[in-house]
Amino acid sequence: MRRASFRDMNCSVAQSLEVLGEWWTLLIVRDAFFGVSRFEEFQSRLGIARNILATRLETLVEAGILERRVYEEARGRSDYVLTAKGRALWPVLTALRQWGDDWMVGEGNAPVEMVHRTCGARARAEMVCSHCGERLHGRDLKVVAGPGSDDPSLLRSPAPGLPGAD
Amino acid sequence: MRRASFRDMNCSVAQSLEVLGEWWTLLIVRDAFFGVSRFEEFQSRLGIARNILATRLETLVEAGILERRVYEEARGRSDYVLTAKGRALWPVLTALRQWGDDWMVGEGNAPVEMVHRTCGARARAEMVCSHCGERLHGRDLKVVAGPGSDDPSLLRSPAPGLPGAD
Repeated sequence: MRRASFRDMNCSVAQSLEVLGEWWTLLIVRDAFFGVSRFEEFQSRLGIARNILATRLETLVEAGILERRVYEEARGRSDYVLTAKGRALWPVLTALRQWGDDWMVGEGNAPVEMVHRTCGARARAEMVCSHCGERLHGRDLKVVAGPGSDDPSLLRSPAPGLPGAD
Repeated sequence: MRRASFRDMNCSVAQSLEVLGEWWTLLIVRDAFFGVSRFEEFQSRLGIARNILATRLETLVEAGILERRVYEEARGRSDYVLTAKGRALWPVLTALRQWGDDWMVGEGNAPVEMVHRTCGARARAEMVCSHCGERLHGRDLKVVAGPGSDDPSLLRSPAPGLPGAD
């Protein structure tokens, strides 16, 4: 049940949650990354009620994250594939998966791992600075008003930042 | 309204959504990163109903993401601060914010930017491979069963991966 719209909050996290902040949505996107495209397969993998799945898929299509693709015109069959906007979600899923590996399922229990085809290693994704290339740590990041800021008080004074972030 | 529990799904994304996959939760965590700690301030910033906020804060404390800290014992006042588990969420929030900047609010409209204290630049976080250090692209990632996998069919045969990911 949606309790409010985040659409009017001038915050990219809130805007993203406007489409993604619903229990099933990111799992549908996860399965789309695994190559799942058909309604029946989403349904059996997720064990989700059909009406809820239909609504979520429609939301994802309207948000431009999935697109409906006709694969059998004669019988009017279509399935769902990720758009560029949807494919751009892999860092979000990766960050969420790694946090879950570390803090929810615990060491040595990762259900899924990632192989980097380029080097062939089972690897993790690490965040680096786009400017200097150094490994990022939360404690080194300071949050400042961006060009689209309309409410700098969002950042709090006097020293916005990520207090105590590791 | 929770429709099902994701706790039994052997997937780190689902396990993470078990605590985080609720509309307000990540915005509370976002504000905690901004240094907000008191109930009243969360409430006024988020415009969230007090009973919902109280429930969400309790969920976050139970999940070990926030901890309650007494700041004025005589009057029994306490506030909420991020634990190590909570601070470890910054890559999730960062990935989500950047996706929102790119695909929801659009170029030049980022409400918030990040300064990397180490180099002083306004920068983005980029994901690199922990093994070879190369910039990661979704298309170069292959998902494989991990040590905790109990259902390799989750990955689908024959070629699990991130089809068409950029």
